[in-house]
Amino acid sequence: MGEFELLARVKERLPQAGPPVRLGSGDDAAISVPGGATATSVDALIDGVHFRREWSSLPQIGAKALAVALSDLAAMGAEPGEAYVVLGVPPDLDEDGCIELLDGMTALAAETGTTLAGGDVTRAPALTLALTVVGHAADAEDFVTRSGAQPGDALVVTGELGGAAAGLLLLEGTGVKGGSSGARSSFVPHSDIKDERKRSLIAQQLEPRPRLGAGRALAAAGATAMIDLSDGLGGDARHLAAASGVGLRIDAAALPLAAGVAEVAAAAGRNPIELATSGGEDYELLAALPPDLLAAATAALQRDAEAALTRIGEVVAGEGVEIRLPGGETLEPTGFDQLG
Amino acid sequence: MGEFELLARVKERLPQAGPPVRLGSGDDAAISVPGGATATSVDALIDGVHFRREWSSLPQIGAKALAVALSDLAAMGAEPGEAYVVLGVPPDLDEDGCIELLDGMTALAAETGTTLAGGDVTRAPALTLALTVVGHAADAEDFVTRSGAQPGDALVVTGELGGAAAGLLLLEGTGVKGGSSGARSSFVPHSDIKDERKRSLIAQQLEPRPRLGAGRALAAAGATAMIDLSDGLGGDARHLAAASGVGLRIDAAALPLAAGVAEVAAAAGRNPIELATSGGEDYELLAALPPDLLAAATAALQRDAEAALTRIGEVVAGEGVEIRLPGGETLEPTGFDQLG
Repeated sequence: MGEFELLARVKERLPQAGPPVRLGSGDDAAISVPGGATATSVDALIDGVHFRREWSSLPQIGAKALAVALSDLAAMGAEPGEAYVVLGVPPDLDEDGCIELLDGMTALAAETGTTLAGGDVTRAPALTLALTVVGHAADAEDFVTRSGAQPGDALVVTGELGGAAAGLLLLEGTGVKGGSSGARSSFVPHSDIKDERKRSLIAQQLEPRPRLGAGRALAAAGATAMIDLSDGLGGDARHLAAASGVGLRIDAAALPLAAGVAEVAAAAGRNPIELATSGGEDYELLAALPPDLLAAATAALQRDAEAALTRIGEVVAGEGVEIRLPGGETLEPTGFDQLG
Repeated sequence: MGEFELLARVKERLPQAGPPVRLGSGDDAAISVPGGATATSVDALIDGVHFRREWSSLPQIGAKALAVALSDLAAMGAEPGEAYVVLGVPPDLDEDGCIELLDGMTALAAETGTTLAGGDVTRAPALTLALTVVGHAADAEDFVTRSGAQPGDALVVTGELGGAAAGLLLLEGTGVKGGSSGARSSFVPHSDIKDERKRSLIAQQLEPRPRLGAGRALAAAGATAMIDLSDGLGGDARHLAAASGVGLRIDAAALPLAAGVAEVAAAAGRNPIELATSGGEDYELLAALPPDLLAAATAALQRDAEAALTRIGEVVAGEGVEIRLPGGETLEPTGFDQLG
């Protein structure tokens, strides 16, 4: 396989670049005329660290790499714009495999209105994807950062939590009664799994979708701070609290658990609240907003993004994150640390 | 080492973000207000593919990753703006090592006026750096692409060629009479090498500098097409010829060989012209421009960028690249293919 041959095949398959891209893949750089403010984020996914090739199809891996990157733009309330891809190709992935992977990525790009505007392909010891995504807004002030939460704000979360962590337990075989050691060693398309609920949990792990519409709706509805849940609610809440200089109180009983999380947690001998707060990778959005804007925000999310919004706590003066369990105890929030 | 601890240490060491960056590292995304046109390019460097840790110091690796990315902006005639870094950390690189590497990168960022505006740190099987760089111009038309060369244009190159390839031969021990097998297995700071000329060639391999000033000067002087020499003159000339729909004739006798290339080539039993045309990694600029603009362009480069400009051939109707050797024969141009 030649680098230039692969690039030529990739370029052929890319749809026409959308505005503001004036010149896409194939020159020394892509040319764009943003015409407003941009939000830029980078994310890397590496085989054995962020995914396992035996658990995911190649299109799933390509789509997940883009989804994870776009999730950061969702957390800014940005309109997705361009994506730039670094693909590190291991010895056992051929040109057709690369194309399959990129097809998964371009499908999600089309679904979200993202232009794949450039990239670099190289050999690598393990399949490596590094994505840079650029989102847009008319003004810099339109973006929602992590740092504007005020004491008195309501703390809300989109969608449901714990699904990705439960899906991971299922893939590892530890969330399945009787075990399933085969899942470790060979790729089983999760569409072959008979149990609809398990299939859905595994899909939440392997096929996350960025909450772009919900992020824009929350920004428009007056969110004061926002972050996406990549490391787990506990850890990401700490980031938001630290950046805003506030404390957060989270009511564990209010957390919207995904269907099946309780069963998988029970089978694995784990606490479902822990899956929801420390598991990570749900790629939902955590936001703060004044309580009087909550009803309108909930309606807007339902209407514009078909996403539920759940109030899970409040912003208080002080610092740190407290997760209150139903019994009155508190849970120490931990997050997923990629180097830990 | 924790991801968040490392990120905090990195953030501490970054200088204040320059305009147009409104919000740098530490949120879900960096915020920028470009105010004109942007050129964006991505480049990945992986241990064992693009560099060897036993040959380079960590600051050299960090600086080279940024230099290689910025070289693409130089080839657009862009003003460097922001850089986004993905750092994949192997098991044997500790937090201090990461900081050392990033110090090399930030030093070059400061030297070139580039803002390190964001990044992602993750575990990886081999040291991996993926850089996205964004450059600026008032209008999209101010950038010089690969595709505007016209028959009759002069073909010019900045600086000198073959130095990086000769430096690589020296590092491999094949360019040293009597051999130096030790160079393969342990890192020898090239500043310890007694021979000044060898030291300079090795520095050209390990410490390339992007031709940003020369790129801007060539754009302002009326260059019709431009590309940076990363894959080698032969291969990069083919890219420019194909993008412009023209042919290129290169006079091998006119190529400005770096000092010492001839000696190293002789010691290694290689043709110095081949090192200059197929070796790659010189990160000089190849440009086309109307012959009547050549004198002014040469003077501008000398004045603004302290870079020599050498006419090495011409743009002709047709297609393909012909490199004419002194004896009248032609050389088949080949380039370095990272997947080949």
